[in-house]
Amino acid sequence: MTKPKNDTLLRALLKQPVEYTPVWLMRQAGRYLSEYNETRARAGSFLALCKNRDFATEVTMQPLARFPLDAAILFSDILTIPDAMGLGLYFSEGEGPQFERPLREENEIRALKVPDPNTDLRYVMDAVSQIRKTLDNQVPLIGFSGSPFTLACYMVEGRGSTDFRQIKTMLYQRPELLHHILDINAQAVTAYLNAQIESGAQAVMIFDTWGGALSHNAYQEFSLRYMEQILSGLKREHEGARIPNVIFTKGGGLWLEQIADSGCDAIGLDWTIDIGEARQRVGDQVALQGNLDPNVLFAGPETITAEVEKVLSSFGSGNGHVFNLGHGISQFTPPESVTTLVEAVHTLSRKFHLKEC
Amino acid sequence: MTKPKNDTLLRALLKQPVEYTPVWLMRQAGRYLSEYNETRARAGSFLALCKNRDFATEVTMQPLARFPLDAAILFSDILTIPDAMGLGLYFSEGEGPQFERPLREENEIRALKVPDPNTDLRYVMDAVSQIRKTLDNQVPLIGFSGSPFTLACYMVEGRGSTDFRQIKTMLYQRPELLHHILDINAQAVTAYLNAQIESGAQAVMIFDTWGGALSHNAYQEFSLRYMEQILSGLKREHEGARIPNVIFTKGGGLWLEQIADSGCDAIGLDWTIDIGEARQRVGDQVALQGNLDPNVLFAGPETITAEVEKVLSSFGSGNGHVFNLGHGISQFTPPESVTTLVEAVHTLSRKFHLKEC
Repeated sequence: MTKPKNDTLLRALLKQPVEYTPVWLMRQAGRYLSEYNETRARAGSFLALCKNRDFATEVTMQPLARFPLDAAILFSDILTIPDAMGLGLYFSEGEGPQFERPLREENEIRALKVPDPNTDLRYVMDAVSQIRKTLDNQVPLIGFSGSPFTLACYMVEGRGSTDFRQIKTMLYQRPELLHHILDINAQAVTAYLNAQIESGAQAVMIFDTWGGALSHNAYQEFSLRYMEQILSGLKREHEGARIPNVIFTKGGGLWLEQIADSGCDAIGLDWTIDIGEARQRVGDQVALQGNLDPNVLFAGPETITAEVEKVLSSFGSGNGHVFNLGHGISQFTPPESVTTLVEAVHTLSRKFHLKEC
Repeated sequence: MTKPKNDTLLRALLKQPVEYTPVWLMRQAGRYLSEYNETRARAGSFLALCKNRDFATEVTMQPLARFPLDAAILFSDILTIPDAMGLGLYFSEGEGPQFERPLREENEIRALKVPDPNTDLRYVMDAVSQIRKTLDNQVPLIGFSGSPFTLACYMVEGRGSTDFRQIKTMLYQRPELLHHILDINAQAVTAYLNAQIESGAQAVMIFDTWGGALSHNAYQEFSLRYMEQILSGLKREHEGARIPNVIFTKGGGLWLEQIADSGCDAIGLDWTIDIGEARQRVGDQVALQGNLDPNVLFAGPETITAEVEKVLSSFGSGNGHVFNLGHGISQFTPPESVTTLVEAVHTLSRKFHLKEC
C-alpha cells in the first residue's frame, strides 16, 4: 500500500524524525463547521451521518478542505459496537447518546455476543474504504474505537453519567460480571480495529473517555488491562506498513508509566499535565499526543499562538510529538482559531526538529 | 478554649501521634440520611436549612448521632459568598445551584465587593457558634469555603458546567478580569474562614472542586495562587489552639508537590491517586486526607472493609492520615455502609499507629 504523501503523523507516532510537528484535532469534523451542520441537516441526524458511507466521507473530508491538517479521522460514533450488540443506540436532542436497553440483568450480560465487524458493522468498514479512496493518499486516515471500559459505562449506565454509580456498583458488588462485559468488549474492539485496518485505517486510537473516573487500582484492573488485551491482538502491520496506535485515557495523567507499559505506540494527553513532565516520565518508550486546552481556541490569535508555543517548547526538541487538543474541539469554536492553531504548530515547531532531518 | 475530648482529627491534621486514624465524610450530613430529608422537608428547602441556625445545627449533628465520626463539619452551602455579593443564589429541582445574575460584564465585575462575614454572612457565624455549643467539645468542628476559582466558576458560568467555556474564555481572553474576581474572592474567603474560626471552627477546609478542570499552568496561576493568598492571611491559632487547614483540589493529583508548597497543613485527595504514592511525593510536608471512592459504599461489608484496608495499608504506618471519601457521599448510599466504613477505619487502623503512642 502506498504511503501517504504527507506521512508526518505516522512518523511522529513511531518516534521517527519529522520536519515539523504534525497536528490534527479530536472531533475535527464537527459542529463548529457550518458545512458539517449543513450535511447533518441533509442526513437528518447524527446517526444517519455515521451509517451512510457518503455522508461519513463527506464530513471526514470537510476539515481537510479548510485546514492543512496532517491526518483525517474516521467520522463515526464511539458507541457503534454496543449498538451492533443490540442495545439500541439513540440520541435525543441535547441529551447525548443513550441506550434503549442498558445492561442490568445477569442473563442479558451473559448473552452478549462479539459483533462481526465485517457484517454487523459493515457500514463503518465501507466508510473507511471510501474515505481512504477519497483521501487519495494525501494524509493518513486514523481509525478509532471507544475503550472496553468506556463502552461498558454507557452500556451499563444507559447514558453518560457524572457519578458512574451503576457501573461502579457492579464493579464493587459483582466484579466478575463487569469483567465478563469488558472481555467481550475487548474482543469486539480488537476485531473492530483490525477490520478498520484491513479496510484502510493507517493508525488507530482507543478513546478511554471514562477510565479517569476510576480509582488507581480499578483503572488497572478494569480499564488498562483490557486495552492491553486489545493491543496484544491488534495488527501492528498491514501490507508492509506499520500501523501505530494511540491510547487516550482522559484524566489518566497519574498513570502514564503504566499506560506506557501497555505496549502502545503513543499516549494521548489531556491538558492537565505538562507535556514536558509527561515526556520525562515515559522517556523514550512512547510518543505523546496533545495537549492544548480546547478552550484556548476562544482566545485571540496572539494567545492561541503563545499557548501553542508553550506546548511545543515544553515537549522540546526531538521526535515523538503529535500536536492535538486535550479533548474534542468545542462546537462553539470559531473556525479561524483552528487556522491560527494549525499555522502556529506548523511554523513554530520547525525549530524543534532541525537536528533530526 | 477547651480542646475536644476526641481531638484525633486535629492531631492527625498536624501530623501528631494518634491511636487510630480519624474519619469523617465529605457531605456526611446529607440526603442519604432519612432524618436529614425530614428536617429538610420541615425547613422547606436546602437554602432554608443553611440560613437558619437551628436547622443547620440539627443536620450537622445528625450523622454524629448515628456514627462515631471523629469530626463535625459545618452544614452550609459552598456558594454563600457569591450569594452575599448579591448574585442571587437559587436552586431549582434536579438542577444544582444557579445564580440569577452571573458575572459577564466588566462593570459588574469591577463593582464586586468583599462581603463582611459578620454582617452579610451572619447566619453562617451564628450556625458555627451554635453547633460548637451543641457539640459540647465531643469532636472538633470543621469550617469550610469554596476556593476562589471554584466560586468564580459558578459566578461566571451562572451554574455548574461540564466544559467551563465561559470562565475559560475569560481566562484566555481577559485574564486580568478573572484575576480581579479571584482576588476579591480570595479576600472574601480569608475573611469568611477567619470569622468561622473566631466563631468556633477548629479546622478549616477549602474545597477547590473545579481547579482540576484547569491546565497545569492555569491551575497555578488561577487557582492555587489564590488559595496561597488565603493561607497567608488565615488565622493559624485561636485562643491558644492550632487551627489546621486542608486544601482539596478534586483532580489535583498531578499537582501535589505544588499544593504541598502552598503552606497548607493537609491535602485532600480524590480516589484517582494511590495515597501511598501521594505520601511518597509530598514526604513529611503535609498530612493527607482521603481517599476512598464513594461508590465503594454500594458494595457489601466485606468489600467495604477490604477497600478501607487497602487505603490504610497504602498510607502505611505513621502520622498524618485522616480517612475520608475522595468526594462527597452519594445520596443513594445505604447508611449501614457508613457504619461498616467507620468501624473498619477505627479497628483496622490501630496497627498502623502502635509505634507512635
